[in-house]
Amino acid sequence: MLSEFDLIARYFTRPTRRPGPVTLGIGDDCALLTPPRGSQLAISSDMLVEGRHFFPNADPFQLGHKCLAVNLSDLAAMGAAPVGFTLALSLPAARPEWLEPFSKGLLNLADRHGCELIGGDTTKGPLNICITIFGQVPPAQSLRRDAAQAGDDIWISGTLGDARLALAGYRNELPLDKDMLAGAAPRMHAPTPRVELGVALRGIARAAIDISDGLVGDLGHILHRSGVGASLDVDRLPPGTVLAAQAADLRRRFTLAGGDDYELCFTAPANRRDEVLAAGSLSSTPVTRVGSIEALPGLRLKDADGMPLPMQLTSFDHFASP
Amino acid sequence: MLSEFDLIARYFTRPTRRPGPVTLGIGDDCALLTPPRGSQLAISSDMLVEGRHFFPNADPFQLGHKCLAVNLSDLAAMGAAPVGFTLALSLPAARPEWLEPFSKGLLNLADRHGCELIGGDTTKGPLNICITIFGQVPPAQSLRRDAAQAGDDIWISGTLGDARLALAGYRNELPLDKDMLAGAAPRMHAPTPRVELGVALRGIARAAIDISDGLVGDLGHILHRSGVGASLDVDRLPPGTVLAAQAADLRRRFTLAGGDDYELCFTAPANRRDEVLAAGSLSSTPVTRVGSIEALPGLRLKDADGMPLPMQLTSFDHFASP
Repeated sequence: MLSEFDLIARYFTRPTRRPGPVTLGIGDDCALLTPPRGSQLAISSDMLVEGRHFFPNADPFQLGHKCLAVNLSDLAAMGAAPVGFTLALSLPAARPEWLEPFSKGLLNLADRHGCELIGGDTTKGPLNICITIFGQVPPAQSLRRDAAQAGDDIWISGTLGDARLALAGYRNELPLDKDMLAGAAPRMHAPTPRVELGVALRGIARAAIDISDGLVGDLGHILHRSGVGASLDVDRLPPGTVLAAQAADLRRRFTLAGGDDYELCFTAPANRRDEVLAAGSLSSTPVTRVGSIEALPGLRLKDADGMPLPMQLTSFDHFASP
Repeated sequence: MLSEFDLIARYFTRPTRRPGPVTLGIGDDCALLTPPRGSQLAISSDMLVEGRHFFPNADPFQLGHKCLAVNLSDLAAMGAAPVGFTLALSLPAARPEWLEPFSKGLLNLADRHGCELIGGDTTKGPLNICITIFGQVPPAQSLRRDAAQAGDDIWISGTLGDARLALAGYRNELPLDKDMLAGAAPRMHAPTPRVELGVALRGIARAAIDISDGLVGDLGHILHRSGVGASLDVDRLPPGTVLAAQAADLRRRFTLAGGDDYELCFTAPANRRDEVLAAGSLSSTPVTRVGSIEALPGLRLKDADGMPLPMQLTSFDHFASP
């Protein structure tokens, strides 16, 4: 068994970059991190299970990318800059034809964000990938879920719904032609974590969350923890490029509650709109104003004319797989 | 599904203690840790899989204890004091009769060490428990694997081999009567992490590792990374109380290469023996001197008369399950 898992060391062990906060990387009982003076460490764990978070035949390069992307997205939602991560991996077998592309997809993205693999664990078992990620953020500048205030604008990065559209195509919930599926699929398989935007929003945005379970549900966490309500201009929600060509009802449903978008939903005071737009430019990330935080609890949906829309738009139970 | 996993929140969510290094616990995109000024953060991840690291019918209270214990043991081996941990849990179903004792076993041990559950993830899937743990240690005082020097004594905490003896009983490799199994089993199911000893050895010990895969293999990591060799006084290795009554050959094999002991193996300069013994007293942990680090690479085994013993003692292939 050990010699089998020595293979893994080949794909995942790399020299520690110096100088940097990672004082000791893979190979001891623990990794050692020396956080920069005066910074806080933001920490998040995500566990991805075959058949639940990804298809059993998932492309390993994309899977490696996605596993780290969802964690980087959590850092982005706190305004934290990536530092390093641990990887715990349960594998049915150590196959080089899987490990090589998986590690490439993972480490390419890690390198792009200067996020170092500092340790972890490998074992034999059903495929399961658990990443714990570490970032740093100046103490008073983290973007927390409990910081939204009545009067804040609500903003969305990028576009929503194409990941959900691709899933609908795979599940044959919708007739999606080949080109459309090919256009939407990358949003599902290889999401772009909005790390640069999150950092650029420090000191400007108040509350933030990343949209993994659908905008309405995730915005709901901000509302709940901040003790506020909101109204959303549903027809201002930016649809993905493929979703944009679909009928209005589907566009509304998938932008409101698609899931797997990994965009940021954040709030900022209305007098800081220029700064939010500048943060978007600085990070080359489109940002769209889509609603406002209100003192009245609950979420209200409005169409382009300001008329109320029914909350049923946010429910996908009729789409759920049996 | 969500309502099912809301159950989990009930068992694992607790208020964050203040004041302390945990600035923000469960419930946001990330937890926030503010490391004490001038300290390093020690980080370790372990993934435990049903059928591989524990029996499918494992007692959930003991399992909760063990999952955290093996991580605390990694901190102990660095001389780090526990701060907090994340728990990622994949479960076939959220059954209260499992979750309640599991969380109790886990959190009881966490409380004993002031180690706070700061975040994590839960998902449906084959049973898999992944803990990432954080501790703090003053920068120049961590106990690393690469720090052993020729002339150092080699020490062992507690006793060795009873965990392996229990496993042999379960596997029917050995005829073990009921009382003996009952005596040895706690060492396998509920190991004691040597956290207080690890902290007490700061500035005294040079290199350390925790013994999870068997003394010879784990000491081998110290030798390899420190570029040294060693000789071990095999008959000085402290056997567990049940193993102590077994024949010499089995005693030697199980103390040398038993596995699952979660004792510390550490080295310290020969002129600091009194301080090592004092650290043992201070932490109420027995410590035994069992050999020395030597410049000559390789490991040499000696009996009570100083005569060489064969290295085959360290191999268990004939015991391995088919």
